[in-house]
Amino acid sequence: MSEREPLLEHILKDYDESLNLHGVDGRRLAYRLNELAKISLTKENGSNRPGFSQGELAAKKLIFQWMEEVGLQVYQDGAGNVIGRLEGSDSALPTIMSGSHVDSVPNGGHFDGTLGVLTALEVVEAWKSTGYKPCKSYEVLIFSDEEGARFNGGFLGSQALVGNYEIEELKKLVSIDNLSFEEVLADVGLSVDSYQTALRDFSNVELFIEVHIEQGKQLERAGLPCGIVSGIAGPCWLEMTFIGIAGHAGNTPMKDRNDALVAASEFISKVSQLPGEINDTAVATVGKMNISPNGVNVIPGEVKLYVDIRDINEETRNKLVDCIIQEAERISKKHQVSLSYAKTMETDPVPIKEEKQLLLEEVLKEQGIEPMRLPSGAGHDAMIIGGKTDIAMIFVKSINGISHNPLEWSNLNDCIQTVHVLKRFIEKLNE
Amino acid sequence: MSEREPLLEHILKDYDESLNLHGVDGRRLAYRLNELAKISLTKENGSNRPGFSQGELAAKKLIFQWMEEVGLQVYQDGAGNVIGRLEGSDSALPTIMSGSHVDSVPNGGHFDGTLGVLTALEVVEAWKSTGYKPCKSYEVLIFSDEEGARFNGGFLGSQALVGNYEIEELKKLVSIDNLSFEEVLADVGLSVDSYQTALRDFSNVELFIEVHIEQGKQLERAGLPCGIVSGIAGPCWLEMTFIGIAGHAGNTPMKDRNDALVAASEFISKVSQLPGEINDTAVATVGKMNISPNGVNVIPGEVKLYVDIRDINEETRNKLVDCIIQEAERISKKHQVSLSYAKTMETDPVPIKEEKQLLLEEVLKEQGIEPMRLPSGAGHDAMIIGGKTDIAMIFVKSINGISHNPLEWSNLNDCIQTVHVLKRFIEKLNE
Repeated sequence: MSEREPLLEHILKDYDESLNLHGVDGRRLAYRLNELAKISLTKENGSNRPGFSQGELAAKKLIFQWMEEVGLQVYQDGAGNVIGRLEGSDSALPTIMSGSHVDSVPNGGHFDGTLGVLTALEVVEAWKSTGYKPCKSYEVLIFSDEEGARFNGGFLGSQALVGNYEIEELKKLVSIDNLSFEEVLADVGLSVDSYQTALRDFSNVELFIEVHIEQGKQLERAGLPCGIVSGIAGPCWLEMTFIGIAGHAGNTPMKDRNDALVAASEFISKVSQLPGEINDTAVATVGKMNISPNGVNVIPGEVKLYVDIRDINEETRNKLVDCIIQEAERISKKHQVSLSYAKTMETDPVPIKEEKQLLLEEVLKEQGIEPMRLPSGAGHDAMIIGGKTDIAMIFVKSINGISHNPLEWSNLNDCIQTVHVLKRFIEKLNE
Repeated sequence: MSEREPLLEHILKDYDESLNLHGVDGRRLAYRLNELAKISLTKENGSNRPGFSQGELAAKKLIFQWMEEVGLQVYQDGAGNVIGRLEGSDSALPTIMSGSHVDSVPNGGHFDGTLGVLTALEVVEAWKSTGYKPCKSYEVLIFSDEEGARFNGGFLGSQALVGNYEIEELKKLVSIDNLSFEEVLADVGLSVDSYQTALRDFSNVELFIEVHIEQGKQLERAGLPCGIVSGIAGPCWLEMTFIGIAGHAGNTPMKDRNDALVAASEFISKVSQLPGEINDTAVATVGKMNISPNGVNVIPGEVKLYVDIRDINEETRNKLVDCIIQEAERISKKHQVSLSYAKTMETDPVPIKEEKQLLLEEVLKEQGIEPMRLPSGAGHDAMIIGGKTDIAMIFVKSINGISHNPLEWSNLNDCIQTVHVLKRFIEKLNE
């Protein structure tokens, strides 16, 4: 997409109309992806819609209109979340929800979030076409500020819905454009007071299901349009400092060294091996590291690094964290350097019930798609909503695994197939 | 010395007068160290005498005067080097030289360089006291700009003496205070033309011997006042870039990664083990490393690092360089990351003849000092002069191995003992 080919044409490339069954319309989905992409389009053909920006507001307003046109009862809550409700035929039954977000990282792509909202809405469009009426109420949601581009946080919309925030902490936030939380909300007609009214009662909600692009390469490698998310990994971040003794690289014999980088390097090698010993879905990464004094002819005196540790299972994630700390201690002793560390972040993994995954498997098989399960390493609105109700997630194949980038892409045919999966899944929950 | 105790008092602490034998006077040495320290003293009690500065000039002038007072024929050459000559009784015999430099790094110490000049001069003072007349001529040298604090280079004085420079390259130099080479020289009464007249004929020079602080901890650990330098290591610098694929730390399974930092870490671990497999005196250090994009939750896509490889033996140094490159290639292949590298610096090691080391051993034993040999990892003026004549070096114990710092220190008694060693060594060459 970097050559500014008309976006709609690019979306419709190889479009397979034969996928338009049971009221699902791929061309409508393509049109809507294109209409949303036009809002806050960057010169690199990316999307620039930070949370609570005019761009995000415009995208919400456009979808609000589509929601009304298809007959949903639509409202925006005090946190800016947009909720379109289709009343079920049996008001005694619980509600099913689906949706995602329409904000983006700076110069991000056109599928992250947006696709989850549009697929949820397309289900309603299809039902309208075929005259299908679910017995359970169905809601399509657009959450505000999932990416956190504005405050380096994220999930401000879904957190408002579940009440998972400290209002005093939010009031202290300062945006990257140097505005307070109140000022940022005021820009889109919201307030700290209104934000607190967004709290939702989840006692009558059966499940929230989110469609999202994979942002990885596993589905592409397996040649599958979509897959079943087996759980959302909770990251734990360890900040570790190895302190040795700086010295002249020429005048200090090898055996007399307390080289912080040699110790840190042995540790990083080990970190890359440990997840596989504990769980298939576990990952651990040293992505950020700073060396001091960082001179070509100076033995490193201090290395500060960060370990990002994730798994969809809390027990194995914590076991991995413990193993990594033990290895850091063992290796620092071996190299006679001192070690200090702190957990700078710890988010619990969010499991997805086996019964929901099995139901998705059933649907995928019906659609002729081999059911593949894969963990979500990144956080999503479903992770937040998962604190209050059951969740499920469907990942859509990402081209080359690219995300948060104008080149982020998913094939329209894969998206259409995913709408069918989502639609059948919800219909089965209505059976 | 950080508490500004009077410097002379600090130098004379635990001074052992019984070491004052054969005309050597420890108090004179202490007084001269103190007088030089007063020139360009920093507020942290350090020394700030960049090459070709007024401070370096003042230090040279003071020693020039001491040289004249003791009866040397003194002159300054066109590169600012100061040479004090004691004519030997037999003009047919070759000349012996000793000396070092009096410039410093910014906020450096009071022993680096200065001690080598003052010990060389103290030998003449001792001879004068006892009436000893060497048959070979003896020269005390002060080289200009050894540290290179001004032009990020160094050795401009000794290079002028041996003619090891490209004048057109020197003319292109810009100092850290934004002056040309010509302007810097003009400030101390020199010129590009005069610089080129400093070339010295070494055909009648037998040997240059330099006393220098160790700038390491080996002598301190061995409890020795001084030791025999076994050779000057020549550094080779490798710039290496490991290029993998950046990716989301949560969404990329361990087995699908091309993590540049994991590869670099295995390499760094290996680099720390290789010197010991090749030579006792060899060292290899990764001191500088930059990671990209360097985000906590991003798999490193690129790591650029520098390897500093040294040995006093050219063959083993080059063998180590080759081994390190081979390991980098093997490890990058193993981790499926690409590797590029370049040698950004390569200086030949300067050997010190076994016969000179044996003669120093003999002298040390006579003085009751266990002869310990140790390589010089850093470069010194002797390294440059070694291109033209035989060299020898004596290292003096550094307290805590600290150098290039106001806390750089050597014990006066160790310095006095070193004068005796230097004096006896030169006398033996006269026998």
